[in-house]
Amino acid sequence: MNVYLFEFIGTCMLILLGNGIVANLVLKGTKGSDSGWVGISLAWGIAVFVGVYISADVSGAHLNPAVSIGLAAAGKFGWDLVPGYIIAQILGAFTGNILVWLTYKKQYEATDDKGSILATFSTAPAIRSPFWNLVTEIIGTFVLVFGVFYIAGGTISNEPVSLGSLDALPVALLVMGIGFSLGGPTGYAINPARDLGPRIAHSILPLKNKGKSDWSYAWVPIVGPVIGSFLAAFAFMALSV
Amino acid sequence: MNVYLFEFIGTCMLILLGNGIVANLVLKGTKGSDSGWVGISLAWGIAVFVGVYISADVSGAHLNPAVSIGLAAAGKFGWDLVPGYIIAQILGAFTGNILVWLTYKKQYEATDDKGSILATFSTAPAIRSPFWNLVTEIIGTFVLVFGVFYIAGGTISNEPVSLGSLDALPVALLVMGIGFSLGGPTGYAINPARDLGPRIAHSILPLKNKGKSDWSYAWVPIVGPVIGSFLAAFAFMALSV
Amino acid sequence: MNVYLFEFIGTCMLILLGNGIVANLVLKGTKGSDSGWVGISLAWGIAVFVGVYISADVSGAHLNPAVSIGLAAAGKFGWDLVPGYIIAQILGAFTGNILVWLTYKKQYEATDDKGSILATFSTAPAIRSPFWNLVTEIIGTFVLVFGVFYIAGGTISNEPVSLGSLDALPVALLVMGIGFSLGGPTGYAINPARDLGPRIAHSILPLKNKGKSDWSYAWVPIVGPVIGSFLAAFAFMALSV
Amino acid sequence: MNVYLFEFIGTCMLILLGNGIVANLVLKGTKGSDSGWVGISLAWGIAVFVGVYISADVSGAHLNPAVSIGLAAAGKFGWDLVPGYIIAQILGAFTGNILVWLTYKKQYEATDDKGSILATFSTAPAIRSPFWNLVTEIIGTFVLVFGVFYIAGGTISNEPVSLGSLDALPVALLVMGIGFSLGGPTGYAINPARDLGPRIAHSILPLKNKGKSDWSYAWVPIVGPVIGSFLAAFAFMALSV
Repeated sequence: MNVYLFEFIGTCMLILLGNGIVANLVLKGTKGSDSGWVGISLAWGIAVFVGVYISADVSGAHLNPAVSIGLAAAGKFGWDLVPGYIIAQILGAFTGNILVWLTYKKQYEATDDKGSILATFSTAPAIRSPFWNLVTEIIGTFVLVFGVFYIAGGTISNEPVSLGSLDALPVALLVMGIGFSLGGPTGYAINPARDLGPRIAHSILPLKNKGKSDWSYAWVPIVGPVIGSFLAAFAFMALSV
Repeated sequence: MNVYLFEFIGTCMLILLGNGIVANLVLKGTKGSDSGWVGISLAWGIAVFVGVYISADVSGAHLNPAVSIGLAAAGKFGWDLVPGYIIAQILGAFTGNILVWLTYKKQYEATDDKGSILATFSTAPAIRSPFWNLVTEIIGTFVLVFGVFYIAGGTISNEPVSLGSLDALPVALLVMGIGFSLGGPTGYAINPARDLGPRIAHSILPLKNKGKSDWSYAWVPIVGPVIGSFLAAFAFMALSV
Repeated sequence: MNVYLFEFIGTCMLILLGNGIVANLVLKGTKGSDSGWVGISLAWGIAVFVGVYISADVSGAHLNPAVSIGLAAAGKFGWDLVPGYIIAQILGAFTGNILVWLTYKKQYEATDDKGSILATFSTAPAIRSPFWNLVTEIIGTFVLVFGVFYIAGGTISNEPVSLGSLDALPVALLVMGIGFSLGGPTGYAINPARDLGPRIAHSILPLKNKGKSDWSYAWVPIVGPVIGSFLAAFAFMALSV
Repeated sequence: MNVYLFEFIGTCMLILLGNGIVANLVLKGTKGSDSGWVGISLAWGIAVFVGVYISADVSGAHLNPAVSIGLAAAGKFGWDLVPGYIIAQILGAFTGNILVWLTYKKQYEATDDKGSILATFSTAPAIRSPFWNLVTEIIGTFVLVFGVFYIAGGTISNEPVSLGSLDALPVALLVMGIGFSLGGPTGYAINPARDLGPRIAHSILPLKNKGKSDWSYAWVPIVGPVIGSFLAAFAFMALSV
């Protein structure tokens, strides 16, 4: 039971600290409106660090359905645990974004732009193009999950692997790199729970200047990461022969 | 006796390097006026790193009444030491801000804006709303103290725990993350001593363009962090059963 | 065979994450156009981190002909492996840039400026002066390879040395430093494969607003790094006597 | 003999990578003119990292007369070695700045502003006030040397201590923090060699738009750091009783 609880907590921390920087950047009446993409990339990486650090020793700190699926596809994590992990991750992401909303309550009220408000929940592409947005998410998630394989335990055989708290820093750097370098076109969801949980929160919360939740895009940051995770698993397995 | 002395020194270093970046950013006639929120968040995190590194092996490097109280509430630090730690922390923060003032003496003289001068001492909200400012401080401090529990020693039983110098980097990253992501509404005191000691310094120092010390807000960065620390202790205890 | 494969993979990751930040910065329609030189320097360093981390335990993570040549010149790597390493590195860099192009496909289409597009592939000097550009590349590469000697294994005798995954962070910081401090005049190729592979990709890819591939400059980021690597090897050998 | 040689090399690397970022920021015709104070602070810290990493295992990586003097004053380094260390550090800083000049040769030629050119060599105060500039340098150097004592080996007795390569990261973070937070008024020399060696280089080099070398200020970044280092030694000794 605890493994699901810590996946929930870790993903909640990830989204609180991850979408917190977005709120600081795009909402009105904050102190960090000049944080820019450097702030976004660094802070999302640090959010990963904190989430992984807290949860790693109990749940292995996937915090991302793409990681759970990728590890399972490579025979390094039990498929039976995957559904519970994914549910915990989505609930954690949902809850984390509620906390972002409470932290920035007055700033949400002061902000008129509906796109900015949605941006503090789920991702949106800079140039909308479902196919190429999907490609971007596939490549970003491939780099993430492929990197996690080598951080989590290297090339040896088909034992289960998981992240420990000492892996928090390399994974954080990996996500910082993905943000800086591959995040430009789509805002790098690279994590179905990170996008879906907050999008549900956006559609439910009584936000003053709430716009549409852009559900037509919601499949991209789910399907892209899942494809990317399978590709990473296949690549890793092929290289481990 | 030494434990109090090193809490004093560590908190003094924390505030010297923490409010130093604020002075560099907001005062006139400095070289770092373009540091922005990225500079604030990185430098406050590094300030934590230095303060923790220097004091950890003697005092456990709380540097923050919220940490002392949170650890004590969870049975991992003696309540009898808490008052002395808090006094040392407030005195350290006070002294650290005197050193900021000496470092930037000519810049204080060159600066007219009273709000900027106060900002180099204590925190102020971007949008004033006591209740929601309190919520923000509670959430920020919860993340800090909850994270410190896992960094300081994990989930095992009710032994006392404390930070060592090797914990300086994770705690610094944790505080960087809180700054980037949760600091936007209130400037993240998340530490009663960090706000109260400097506010006392502000009210005492013979500053040329001194305004009010904004004592009406002073309770928020005290009460919020204390509540946050208790909530973190309860959460940690519930999860450790 | 695996060593070449992992040099290919590591260099591919290096260029994907390295030129990815350039694309994010200079192409139209991205979210990271404010990343600036801080973003460039941090992200290229992180790109090195990821590339080294993934490949180090198999191939030693040279990811750069200058490193392979430098280590060989100092008797710490077999000359017989050098040609294969260099081919793998150039192919990896080529492939990594294809992935940058796919990641930013719509942004490439939205960008008119041919110089910006070329900048997401290969380097160009800020002030064109073949001799002094060469000097800059020699100095930058000297610092890189000289630093790698001490990171990879210190001063002891003539045993072969190689980077391990624990060396990924120091090497990343080294490259961040070179970027920040020595990258201003030429964009710090400091790696013949990093420049040549992507330049070949630029000349082949069906880019909408493709300009010339600036082949007249291509020798500088090849010759400079090779000279720098030999100088570093000689300096290291002289100091190890 | 080797200890002096590695002090020379380490300080040379420190200044090459340290004043390199200044050149990138202030000279005309560079790619990093938007690096800002964030770039300055991060890059100088990384310069320390590289200099310490390369030299630590041979010379203990002082790279700074204030460190050598402070350690000697506390009985943790031999006074007989201090003169040679200082000479090596000044020569290293001089040489490092020659390399900055060669790296940015065309940019120096393209730059008219004499103050900017001098800034790539030695420090200058934002507001000139010898006494308060001295205070700033004393405080900054105190934090540096006091921190180095705890990083180099903690509180135990009067054995000699020195930095090892594993100390490179904490020292780098310490210097990043000093830069961000205490560097605003004077540009944080905190190192007599860092200022004097480059100032000599400035006065000798055939620079196109060379102004005065501002020798009237030169004593501040020498005397301030020396005082700061003694104060740090006394504080450390008092705390170690």
